[in-house]
Amino acid sequence: MDFRPDEMTRAFADEARTFIDEHVLPAEPVLAAQVAATPGEWTVRPVVRALQETARERGLWNLFLPPGEHGLGGGLSNLRYAPVAELTGRSPRLAPAAMNCAAPDTGNMELLAHFGTPEQRETWLEPLLDARIRSAFCMTEPGTASSDASQIGTRIHRDGGANGTGEFVVNGRKWFATGAMNPDCRLLIVMGKTDPSGPRHRQQSMLLVPRDTPGVTVVRPLTVLGYDDRDHGGHAEILFEDVRVPAANLLGELGAGFAIAQARLGPGRIHHCMRALGMAERALDLFRDRANDRIAFGGPLADKGVVRAWAAESRVEIEALRLLVLKTAWLMDTVGARKAMTEIQSIKIAVPRAVQRLLDRAIQLFGAAGLSDDHPLAEMFAAARAMRLADGPDEVHLSALGKAELRPAPTTLEGVVR
Amino acid sequence: MDFRPDEMTRAFADEARTFIDEHVLPAEPVLAAQVAATPGEWTVRPVVRALQETARERGLWNLFLPPGEHGLGGGLSNLRYAPVAELTGRSPRLAPAAMNCAAPDTGNMELLAHFGTPEQRETWLEPLLDARIRSAFCMTEPGTASSDASQIGTRIHRDGGANGTGEFVVNGRKWFATGAMNPDCRLLIVMGKTDPSGPRHRQQSMLLVPRDTPGVTVVRPLTVLGYDDRDHGGHAEILFEDVRVPAANLLGELGAGFAIAQARLGPGRIHHCMRALGMAERALDLFRDRANDRIAFGGPLADKGVVRAWAAESRVEIEALRLLVLKTAWLMDTVGARKAMTEIQSIKIAVPRAVQRLLDRAIQLFGAAGLSDDHPLAEMFAAARAMRLADGPDEVHLSALGKAELRPAPTTLEGVVR
Amino acid sequence: MDFRPDEMTRAFADEARTFIDEHVLPAEPVLAAQVAATPGEWTVRPVVRALQETARERGLWNLFLPPGEHGLGGGLSNLRYAPVAELTGRSPRLAPAAMNCAAPDTGNMELLAHFGTPEQRETWLEPLLDARIRSAFCMTEPGTASSDASQIGTRIHRDGGANGTGEFVVNGRKWFATGAMNPDCRLLIVMGKTDPSGPRHRQQSMLLVPRDTPGVTVVRPLTVLGYDDRDHGGHAEILFEDVRVPAANLLGELGAGFAIAQARLGPGRIHHCMRALGMAERALDLFRDRANDRIAFGGPLADKGVVRAWAAESRVEIEALRLLVLKTAWLMDTVGARKAMTEIQSIKIAVPRAVQRLLDRAIQLFGAAGLSDDHPLAEMFAAARAMRLADGPDEVHLSALGKAELRPAPTTLEGVVR
Amino acid sequence: MDFRPDEMTRAFADEARTFIDEHVLPAEPVLAAQVAATPGEWTVRPVVRALQETARERGLWNLFLPPGEHGLGGGLSNLRYAPVAELTGRSPRLAPAAMNCAAPDTGNMELLAHFGTPEQRETWLEPLLDARIRSAFCMTEPGTASSDASQIGTRIHRDGGANGTGEFVVNGRKWFATGAMNPDCRLLIVMGKTDPSGPRHRQQSMLLVPRDTPGVTVVRPLTVLGYDDRDHGGHAEILFEDVRVPAANLLGELGAGFAIAQARLGPGRIHHCMRALGMAERALDLFRDRANDRIAFGGPLADKGVVRAWAAESRVEIEALRLLVLKTAWLMDTVGARKAMTEIQSIKIAVPRAVQRLLDRAIQLFGAAGLSDDHPLAEMFAAARAMRLADGPDEVHLSALGKAELRPAPTTLEGVVR
Repeated sequence: MDFRPDEMTRAFADEARTFIDEHVLPAEPVLAAQVAATPGEWTVRPVVRALQETARERGLWNLFLPPGEHGLGGGLSNLRYAPVAELTGRSPRLAPAAMNCAAPDTGNMELLAHFGTPEQRETWLEPLLDARIRSAFCMTEPGTASSDASQIGTRIHRDGGANGTGEFVVNGRKWFATGAMNPDCRLLIVMGKTDPSGPRHRQQSMLLVPRDTPGVTVVRPLTVLGYDDRDHGGHAEILFEDVRVPAANLLGELGAGFAIAQARLGPGRIHHCMRALGMAERALDLFRDRANDRIAFGGPLADKGVVRAWAAESRVEIEALRLLVLKTAWLMDTVGARKAMTEIQSIKIAVPRAVQRLLDRAIQLFGAAGLSDDHPLAEMFAAARAMRLADGPDEVHLSALGKAELRPAPTTLEGVVR
Repeated sequence: MDFRPDEMTRAFADEARTFIDEHVLPAEPVLAAQVAATPGEWTVRPVVRALQETARERGLWNLFLPPGEHGLGGGLSNLRYAPVAELTGRSPRLAPAAMNCAAPDTGNMELLAHFGTPEQRETWLEPLLDARIRSAFCMTEPGTASSDASQIGTRIHRDGGANGTGEFVVNGRKWFATGAMNPDCRLLIVMGKTDPSGPRHRQQSMLLVPRDTPGVTVVRPLTVLGYDDRDHGGHAEILFEDVRVPAANLLGELGAGFAIAQARLGPGRIHHCMRALGMAERALDLFRDRANDRIAFGGPLADKGVVRAWAAESRVEIEALRLLVLKTAWLMDTVGARKAMTEIQSIKIAVPRAVQRLLDRAIQLFGAAGLSDDHPLAEMFAAARAMRLADGPDEVHLSALGKAELRPAPTTLEGVVR
Repeated sequence: MDFRPDEMTRAFADEARTFIDEHVLPAEPVLAAQVAATPGEWTVRPVVRALQETARERGLWNLFLPPGEHGLGGGLSNLRYAPVAELTGRSPRLAPAAMNCAAPDTGNMELLAHFGTPEQRETWLEPLLDARIRSAFCMTEPGTASSDASQIGTRIHRDGGANGTGEFVVNGRKWFATGAMNPDCRLLIVMGKTDPSGPRHRQQSMLLVPRDTPGVTVVRPLTVLGYDDRDHGGHAEILFEDVRVPAANLLGELGAGFAIAQARLGPGRIHHCMRALGMAERALDLFRDRANDRIAFGGPLADKGVVRAWAAESRVEIEALRLLVLKTAWLMDTVGARKAMTEIQSIKIAVPRAVQRLLDRAIQLFGAAGLSDDHPLAEMFAAARAMRLADGPDEVHLSALGKAELRPAPTTLEGVVR
Repeated sequence: MDFRPDEMTRAFADEARTFIDEHVLPAEPVLAAQVAATPGEWTVRPVVRALQETARERGLWNLFLPPGEHGLGGGLSNLRYAPVAELTGRSPRLAPAAMNCAAPDTGNMELLAHFGTPEQRETWLEPLLDARIRSAFCMTEPGTASSDASQIGTRIHRDGGANGTGEFVVNGRKWFATGAMNPDCRLLIVMGKTDPSGPRHRQQSMLLVPRDTPGVTVVRPLTVLGYDDRDHGGHAEILFEDVRVPAANLLGELGAGFAIAQARLGPGRIHHCMRALGMAERALDLFRDRANDRIAFGGPLADKGVVRAWAAESRVEIEALRLLVLKTAWLMDTVGARKAMTEIQSIKIAVPRAVQRLLDRAIQLFGAAGLSDDHPLAEMFAAARAMRLADGPDEVHLSALGKAELRPAPTTLEGVVR
């Protein structure tokens, strides 16, 4: 075992840190001003475009995509990407978007890279990798417990030619399609049932639906604890009424929707967790400054026992969970996401709630200011809270992990201390 | 001891419950629509005005004000008011406003009733009791730890005549003045230092400042976890620059500001806690319905062990804390707020966080929908979170209560089992 | 509602407090010495006998038994008994035994009073009320999840005469029969199945088995977190092999075992909770003294922020839970245990774990000394921990309470604010 | 970074696992029987002696001692030792003693290896490494907050010759000297003040005191949550009255007592944490078996949602904390204990309480049996609880870690992702 990151990891992390410190953090008030000045807008704001140029020049672009991913190259292994992704979490509104590493586009790009046909990749992946367009993932539905894929209500019927010449017709309602309020969002990846009576995990397929297809209605934006997240395209409710796309728009095989969704969620979850730790470190920096600056009842807050204990708890949790995230990344790189399931579930469960607690303490230290938007704490809190539901609520993962753990003979990984 | 509420309590509670079930809850979507239709507005919306008429006719008006309060009558004792106040918490946006029992006006009206001169009461209290105007309380400051009154930065200088003929001049900056974005808010009650070198708790005075006084600038609205609370006047940052008011606008005595603030906080805290329990009961109703309606992994959520445990935890916490709130009310009625300090601090500490946890679980059950504004859970969550900071952060109360508890011989109340 | 205890309650509480302060607490080291001096003994020690004399003279005897309980009189209502029971918890080894209010004898006496025939009451109840003998309750079994009564493995066969003339034959193994190591324990109340194929809750019956009946083997003592509790008769594993008792030894009706057990558990649980709160208050007294006496890192522990927060948390939890216990007692007195089920389950869930947490903090303040037997904290901790399992683990109650709470239309109590 | 253990680590871990599975676990009931058969005894029992022979033959001996430690060799680096130490925690009564890796001897041997003179090492270290004798560490005192070294009450006076020819005279009272009840314990390492008016951290010195020196009185054994731990020498209170030893018995320099104690605590803490994780894994194995075997309310406990969630929580906590322990070991090996202070404090805070929670849940699953000594859970629970106080209570570490974390510019380690 060796806990020292290699040269390449450190080089990219150093570059990312410099970029974020020198360019991204100073741009935060600029973004806030641009958003405030354009109340009806959902598009990417100019300051993000400018940062994207800088990031691209510095080689901080599309780093999320694993190397050799269908010849697209340029990316980092999960283990090397982890510190970079964490750093982007320090400025969650700006840094991931600036480096073209923002959800949900990252997950969508991975799907296209893995499962897309050459035509699909040319049409959608290339402009996404170039940040010319954005995309949304349409999985969650308002009427069902979406973590149970067998309940998906959206239906996809094939109309015509069995050999790829016909069309697919989509009917259903999705929501919390992040990014889809943005008119630059051109692609919707939609999960629906093509075979409702098939085997439980073969009923679903995944379809590429251009956002401007007739029958697609972006109904309304949704909020997350009061935030509409309009700077990165919001969260949309979308109605699909007899939406027709060519059969060539099927992503992967017919009936592979569940498997594709699972493939998407592994990296997605680890990216979320990495960024969440970056939010935590940023919050702890803010906590530290505030605790030293603010005086109450005879001395700085940093001298109060309870405040010290909070800082210590935060440090302990970050250190332990970062290691678990890094090990998960290493496992994904070395044995694959499927064998890293225990670890992926573990971080999905543990990181968001730890970060929510940490942010709750930071807000408490800041007083009312912590709840306002004068500091990024409240917004980060909302993001951490949402992570406990995104990609399935904690309880689904606790149940699955517990079930596996209680199997009479739990599986183990050869050669790995677990 | 007798845990049965008396006839009068039950009569008012029954009336309030009927009013809320039949009039207020159905009005919630109406309010949402009126707010959505008037994006720039901070005033009281028409639906609230209509509900106020109904509440007034039914005798559900100004019930918060204790009976015999300077001849103003009509109100209920704290113990009798408690179930009514709890019921208003079921619809926190509408019910308190509909019954003219909404913070911060309630606290401000109590101050005017207790400490106001006849002129002050005629000018400000009467229209407030009639809901013709609204008011704000200006205590918290952006630059200081406001729970430590010795740090108040706002200055009030007397200019001229020692015998009440001169003026007071206010300079300072306040924020989180709830309700003050509303142009109907005509009165600001401002805490500032009149004697910065006096004894620690005699440095402050309380002043009545009309919102339209020259030098008063309502700088901007603030948000709470993303919510601007524009339907009840928002939370304002206010700048006071050489603001002059007649000496007759002093509330209570010179140097009595701290004592007045304390007097205000006792009832304020218990009202907050009562309403918070009502939010909890409403959330539990929603939780129950959702758990029975929503199916996942083979059965309704209500059949899952973890969901049942959550429901049970919620019930247990509500039952225990409601009793503590009721006992606190009884103590305030029988021995006064000062002797009920242990209990007031206890509920201030325990209720908001318990309700926040309960709401967090309810949101988790609802999934992404729980974070949106399709249900009142997210907004209630933000309100409960804010309560842990309003009127002083939990930690200040924990420290004070702990200090008292650790006195070598803690004081006890005669004839009361504590 | 009225939170003031009546005269009678206060009189008994005052008398109990005086007795405990002046007689019981000073006797604690005497008991420790007597136990240490008699390593092989399981009987009641002389110091307890002496205290019993004093308690009897002062009218502090059998107060647990409700008034008018089959003409036995002398006792207190649950509401009036509550403060007395709480006080006995301050010295849990001595005070309950001194006042003949110790589990499991209290529950057994209640059963005999409620369900016993005149002969059964004369034979067993009278000497128990007089503390001449002790008794044990044999419910829990080593091989089954005993909280699920349908799994009881002990079998009771009737042999001979259908009209009360025959015998019952018991076979089975019980454990954690508290008090049964004590040779003064003459009576075992045994739950077993008389009709294994009957309706789920009619399969069990309750039998009175003298401890010296042939076939009864007291196998061994068991420990609870290292404690053998030998001063009050320990916890025994007992084997029943073809144990024969007359048919007249049936307690209540055939098939009524489950109902009788439930009847026993209501008061038993509330008594446990009352005493647990007394343990908490005692621990908080010790905490206070230690925090003031002990100096570390520049000042008394009582001045540290974390220590103050702990004291405050303890006070808040005690105050809220005591009220819930008192209300439960009031409900049991006024509407009966069955209708007070929500509250009984609530205190059973909430009190032991709160007291365990409180004791954990107290131990932490005391350092290693807190884990030793130089202070009563460690022993109380073990007792509180055991309460989370006694009479069913918390999880069974959480599940049942949650299930009831999630019923589409939860039942309510008329005229009671719940 | 690389999370795969090297060949040597795996070889030792495999050997240890085999030894523990095949020899140690089967010996647990033998130890219990031998302890029960010798109620007055505090010595090492025969079964331990036999296991020691086997361990020695298999090369599983003194592995705790880092390689090259003053030519004593044979040991493992902290990183390689970690998995072995964890495995010994699966049978905490037997495995560490069997492999001569049990506290407090390990820490004492390290001190002698580091700071001992050749004579001291020959006299004490060699027999300790050979398990011919045992030793105790006398630091904690009954009258003071021992985590604050400035409060040490024990006094060590030099009598005579300044150049090592005189004697030291010890007066004071120590307690919780683990192992010191065992008559095979020949050496007491005693911390006392040699210069009470010197600089805060130079007042103390460390002295080697043979247990049979005149003036040494082993006063009594102490218990930990009811356990006297008599199989490994118990926990003793020891009185030192004018105890005289030669000046050559000084360990290290005069005034170096505090530094030596700190040096001892780093490895001691990490060893404790490693073993605690082994206890956790053992408990989880027992949990798994019980959950599958035990039926309640219609199915195995393993199918209940709450039980699955518990298992998942346990797995998540173990995985995260094990990594933090391993990284701490790696840091100690590569940059030294001083620079690993943040991590050492972090694991000292986080591991024992996580393991206590895990054991609490396991006990809850087992019901009353979990509290008894039929399973190792209760004893492990007591051990984990004690760890939260051993080597300083959590709160001292939280305060120190928080203070460091809140320094305006926290120190970082070059080249290490923290």
